[in-house]
Amino acid sequence: MSIQAIAFDAYGTLFDVYSIRELGEKLFPGRGMALAELWRDKQIEYTRLRTMCSMYKPFWEVTQDALVFSCNKLGLALTLDAQNALMGQYARLQAFPENLGVLQQLRASGLKLSILSNGNPHMLQSAVDAAGMQGLFSHLLSVEAVKKFKTAPEAYQMAPDVFGLPAKNILFVSSNCWDACCATWFGYTTFWVNRASAPLEELGVVPHGQGRSLTDVVDFVEKNR
Amino acid sequence: MSIQAIAFDAYGTLFDVYSIRELGEKLFPGRGMALAELWRDKQIEYTRLRTMCSMYKPFWEVTQDALVFSCNKLGLALTLDAQNALMGQYARLQAFPENLGVLQQLRASGLKLSILSNGNPHMLQSAVDAAGMQGLFSHLLSVEAVKKFKTAPEAYQMAPDVFGLPAKNILFVSSNCWDACCATWFGYTTFWVNRASAPLEELGVVPHGQGRSLTDVVDFVEKNR
Repeated sequence: MSIQAIAFDAYGTLFDVYSIRELGEKLFPGRGMALAELWRDKQIEYTRLRTMCSMYKPFWEVTQDALVFSCNKLGLALTLDAQNALMGQYARLQAFPENLGVLQQLRASGLKLSILSNGNPHMLQSAVDAAGMQGLFSHLLSVEAVKKFKTAPEAYQMAPDVFGLPAKNILFVSSNCWDACCATWFGYTTFWVNRASAPLEELGVVPHGQGRSLTDVVDFVEKNR
Repeated sequence: MSIQAIAFDAYGTLFDVYSIRELGEKLFPGRGMALAELWRDKQIEYTRLRTMCSMYKPFWEVTQDALVFSCNKLGLALTLDAQNALMGQYARLQAFPENLGVLQQLRASGLKLSILSNGNPHMLQSAVDAAGMQGLFSHLLSVEAVKKFKTAPEAYQMAPDVFGLPAKNILFVSSNCWDACCATWFGYTTFWVNRASAPLEELGVVPHGQGRSLTDVVDFVEKNR
């Protein structure tokens, strides 16, 4: 497949979106996991509705909207302090432990690396800095540039554009199966980091590679350069 | 607002998508509700992914895909018999008890009524027949005609087209808050049948009317003709 560059999804793939459950648990004892999961689901749902309806607004604001809804739905009283604390945590999500080493290894092997994310530029820069990943990516591609969230083709088109490569020569890596599947439809070579041992989405399309952590990307790349 | 016609969402609004939980419970004791809810969520998710990626396929098939995924995810062994039984039930969903009377009343008042649904034509006709609603609707509008699911504008545009009316003179009725919100963005006058006392979606838009059952639509229409 001749992989010459890699585009990584950010949230869920490089940065652990469920890491906020610990803060959620502190703020709302016994409900941290439920809040983290609903918040994530709603965040993604709102990106899709806004994309289909051409009502883009930045991911930071969508994330805040999703937090407010999730607390309403779960009957949790969201004070302004709690909202600021949770959103602040979202700007400094934990990275998965293997990520930094894997990214350094891939970068050292001569591949160009980028992020391709729903996050707006400020969020992405903040997360990259917090994870000590400065200097590893040639581009932090945010859908803010096209005002459509993934899985719109305009969003996926950004990496082929900046790398000057056909999508099939770029490996798109995501821990979200729907993202890996839709990127496969788009034309990327794709790798699904299936951290949670989830079943494959029934979309009639299968990512080209699959593994349990970002470490497994290295092998796949070696075999497909 | 001068309402001159009404377009009803079908699944969840006229037909109870959770009514299959009884059959699900019989097939998978203790898991009927979990299956019904995940099946519904996945069905909707797949319509959105397929719409954003221009990968339309009929709602019947998407519904079947969502059932297969949901059983995989929940660890339920889906035999072909069970699959056929659940899909067969989906073709004959129960209507909410007040619906037939309300539709007859609205129809008798001289309003034109239609369905505007993700369902493909065969599914819609089957559901209407099973609920004894033959003859009440001038149009059963299926997104099959535009090959994009709601909330794509092409889907919402069908009712203004067939009625020859601006969207604001058509009342769009849905029990799905996201559907009522996105139809409001589109330009319809909208009514949210909030059967489950759910919180409003945080999309920065509010349906024009809201009630607890289809019966509440009658009052809203009387005040806005």
